[in-house]
Amino acid sequence: MELYFLGTNAGLPTTQRNVTSVALRMLEERRCSWLFDCGEATQHQILHSPLKLNRLEKIFITHMHGDHVFGLPGLLSSRASQEGTSPLTVYGPQGLKAFLEVTLSATQSRIEFGLEIVEHSGGLIFEDKQIKVEAAALEHRIESYGYRITEKDRPGSLNMELLQEWGVRPGPEYGKLKGGESITANGRTITSGEVLGPPKRGRIVTILGDTRPTSGIHPLAEGADMLVHESTFTREFADLAQKYYHSTAEQAANAAKKAGVGELILTHFSSRYKDYEQLQPLLEEARAIFPNTQLAVEHQSYPIRSAQDREKE
Amino acid sequence: MELYFLGTNAGLPTTQRNVTSVALRMLEERRCSWLFDCGEATQHQILHSPLKLNRLEKIFITHMHGDHVFGLPGLLSSRASQEGTSPLTVYGPQGLKAFLEVTLSATQSRIEFGLEIVEHSGGLIFEDKQIKVEAAALEHRIESYGYRITEKDRPGSLNMELLQEWGVRPGPEYGKLKGGESITANGRTITSGEVLGPPKRGRIVTILGDTRPTSGIHPLAEGADMLVHESTFTREFADLAQKYYHSTAEQAANAAKKAGVGELILTHFSSRYKDYEQLQPLLEEARAIFPNTQLAVEHQSYPIRSAQDREKE
Repeated sequence: MELYFLGTNAGLPTTQRNVTSVALRMLEERRCSWLFDCGEATQHQILHSPLKLNRLEKIFITHMHGDHVFGLPGLLSSRASQEGTSPLTVYGPQGLKAFLEVTLSATQSRIEFGLEIVEHSGGLIFEDKQIKVEAAALEHRIESYGYRITEKDRPGSLNMELLQEWGVRPGPEYGKLKGGESITANGRTITSGEVLGPPKRGRIVTILGDTRPTSGIHPLAEGADMLVHESTFTREFADLAQKYYHSTAEQAANAAKKAGVGELILTHFSSRYKDYEQLQPLLEEARAIFPNTQLAVEHQSYPIRSAQDREKE
Repeated sequence: MELYFLGTNAGLPTTQRNVTSVALRMLEERRCSWLFDCGEATQHQILHSPLKLNRLEKIFITHMHGDHVFGLPGLLSSRASQEGTSPLTVYGPQGLKAFLEVTLSATQSRIEFGLEIVEHSGGLIFEDKQIKVEAAALEHRIESYGYRITEKDRPGSLNMELLQEWGVRPGPEYGKLKGGESITANGRTITSGEVLGPPKRGRIVTILGDTRPTSGIHPLAEGADMLVHESTFTREFADLAQKYYHSTAEQAANAAKKAGVGELILTHFSSRYKDYEQLQPLLEEARAIFPNTQLAVEHQSYPIRSAQDREKE
């Protein structure tokens, strides 16, 4: 489970960075990726990445500003041109459905895979055995959401040595033990508790849309292993951030500290910062408050580690 | 006056080429550029070009397929974020207006420069003292147009040597002579005809949208100095071209030959042709019929030369 950034800029693309999009890659866990936001040319960025359009299962839109959605019609059309493509669901605020329906119908784009468009206004957005996604409103010029993605706990590892000693070979019995059931083998009753290690804690990642500091961030971010927070300006431009409903690096770090997250990733940088050298002050400003902070760099992966994993390191 | 290609691919972007867009640069003649089609990421291509968004005066859309229009909302929004931006007109088929209005309003994009959207169904689209633009329908799966841009003849050059001999210095009198009037200088009446060379012939450039071979091409292309013709496939795939309402390189060359154009530029290549080496067969196929053919290469300029200019070379 890792984040892969496709676009990290606010408002405008530059020659150095694209407008917003980040993928949550879950190849081992789910054999697919999810996308959060889809600025123009996200499909172009994907061409230069290890991601595959037909492996996208879900797309979550934080808010309807153009730098977060203008890449959606093109990405869906290109995905539709691939053969044998699986269904895909797009989640987002009110307005998403009309935007997609009009753009796809005006251009007579034939989307022949099952495309579902789900408009929401926060709450529980998706849940299955493996994962759940919750959304809550932030504070932006328009309706804007953050998403909290919670991986459910996974069963611990089986004690293979003991099982082999007791003559139980890999097979359906292993599944039963992993599921908490007891089995009988060679006249011996084996309970799950005897051979199953402690559960692996699921990871939590929180990805915010554009926002000013707001109390809405805390329940989304609390205890998350990774928080992706917009950081449009340094605190020098706190007035601009306030005026345009954005956050400074300092404000992002304060939110991360308060929520007790594992790691903070800063993204959504103003195009006034031309390159990574010019972005260093944002990183320094945030690290002074919350040391475990990184800048989002396009075409780089950020593995999501549980507290257990982080402790081991 | 030159063409500058921003995207030369059909349907899908690849790592090598973008979807369709070409700029008509008229910096000397008009201090602006025009754009023909605007596939996704055209604004990104412009960032890597000498073009400036605020120097765009008009955008002409050939047809409403996504690979020709998905870059329009983002380009307009980014242009609007620049200060002191002049008005801009977008011309295109039915559906353009709803597409732009819905995408800009759903994303609350504030376009504060004067944006005019003109839907047409062919005929004379625009005319002023310097230039006129005519459109005519082609044959595609949906309504698709070609544009014929005719530069009006410009006055010839003044015979500076003679004027200096007669004691006439640069100033308002030069304008009068260029405009065909006579002047009096040092007691001598000087007629325009005495000092003005032959008029410079205006140039004609024809840019087609996606099309099968059709009689509609001929009046648009006849006698043009430059013809930009789609060339999705080699003749090997003539069946595919017919099925998907596209043209082969051979068909483009036949149209150019019949219309007696000056130069033919092939564009809109299937993504099956990975690089310029793989595009060579299209060029060879066309040159066998119409030698003065070139492939459109992104980020390259193609000066539009009049017959006079071509004869000089």
